[in-house]
Amino acid sequence: MENHTQAQGMPKYLAIAQDIIGLIVRGELAPGAQIPSENEIIATHGVSNTTARRALQELDRRSWVTRIKGRGTFVRQRPVERTVDRILSFTRNMREVGRTPSTRLLGVRVSRANKSLTVRGREYRLPGPLYEVRRLRLADGVPMMLETRFVSMQLCAGLDSKNLEGSLYDVYEKEYGIHLARIDQIVRATLLEGDEMAMLGVEEPVPAFRVEGVTFVGREVILEIENSLYRGDTYQFHVTATQY
Amino acid sequence: MENHTQAQGMPKYLAIAQDIIGLIVRGELAPGAQIPSENEIIATHGVSNTTARRALQELDRRSWVTRIKGRGTFVRQRPVERTVDRILSFTRNMREVGRTPSTRLLGVRVSRANKSLTVRGREYRLPGPLYEVRRLRLADGVPMMLETRFVSMQLCAGLDSKNLEGSLYDVYEKEYGIHLARIDQIVRATLLEGDEMAMLGVEEPVPAFRVEGVTFVGREVILEIENSLYRGDTYQFHVTATQY
Repeated sequence: MENHTQAQGMPKYLAIAQDIIGLIVRGELAPGAQIPSENEIIATHGVSNTTARRALQELDRRSWVTRIKGRGTFVRQRPVERTVDRILSFTRNMREVGRTPSTRLLGVRVSRANKSLTVRGREYRLPGPLYEVRRLRLADGVPMMLETRFVSMQLCAGLDSKNLEGSLYDVYEKEYGIHLARIDQIVRATLLEGDEMAMLGVEEPVPAFRVEGVTFVGREVILEIENSLYRGDTYQFHVTATQY
Repeated sequence: MENHTQAQGMPKYLAIAQDIIGLIVRGELAPGAQIPSENEIIATHGVSNTTARRALQELDRRSWVTRIKGRGTFVRQRPVERTVDRILSFTRNMREVGRTPSTRLLGVRVSRANKSLTVRGREYRLPGPLYEVRRLRLADGVPMMLETRFVSMQLCAGLDSKNLEGSLYDVYEKEYGIHLARIDQIVRATLLEGDEMAMLGVEEPVPAFRVEGVTFVGREVILEIENSLYRGDTYQFHVTATQY
């Protein structure tokens, strides 16, 4: 840490923050590693506690670190990049980025009511009875996503007796011979609240994506309607736009 | 309002909120219309001020209304649905949904520095010099989106002397004969802060989308890199996912 650069004209707190970012980018500080405390920065850089604090605030503001009360400041896990224009299960997505996926089944129940969702101004209706499956999806034990899926009982009779702690897409394919055609999705920016924060293991309000989708088998047959919450601090979505 | 339904077992404040939602859904209360005040609800429904207040809070929490200090509570404009997998200018998007777009040019400057963006693990670099164009985009006079675009000077020499208060895509096409091929985008969920809140006319922290994109002409020529903030309370994105 001693051998830090001090760019001309750059405020000291920023130069210190840049030094630490350099350590993270070069892999010298791995995700989850503790970074220097305010006191350590004061000692190694010979700066005031205001400057040290601002350097840490800057790292936090720019999402390089997470500060955990009473424990210290840690290098943030990199957000997972998720492609939203391709059908991709959580399980496969996590394996692709080198993380170990797991699933906690929160509940399955049968609902008689229809479920509907409006996408691009058109209302899609999945007729009941249907299975309502609530699950928490984790990567390396960290809660990433909370989902509720409403699945056609007509197409997937007996789903509640299958193993629901892995990829549902695999279950559709292997147990029911169903191949997904497309998912029409709405993505909203929201703020995690109350229960959802607790379930997803965050301690203060955090931005999140709410993704609602209608999944089709063939052209117009609806298999499921989904309502999921993705933590905004652990996810970033990408999508390619093309001409019509 | 007197002829309201009171579902059995439903708390009074919820039943009142549902009544008002019904009026909005049926179009009897249009976007921008003022909804009954706490005192009016007390008078028409014969409930306590606590119940009236909770009904209004419920409508706010579920994003049906906006409360403006000292003025009252108003039916929210419906969020604009924006397709993110098709190239679509703000101007055209707003016209399609029946709103009147306008643009406030906040600044244009020439920057010598390169600009880069990493998408799907690949770093794209737009070599300087480039134009940095900052604009605020509005619909019916309401700020919707704040954008910064870094545009290749090599491909668009003299861009700073063009009319930049409309669609930049139109300028590329009409003034430079440039047709866009694709945009690779990253979408993040974030929270509007400080300056951004003020620019976008929101008074408390609001979830938002940050969209960063690389725009290509032909297969690999980069025309611009974009960094935009979309208000999460006025926008919802949609995207279709298909198989690989």
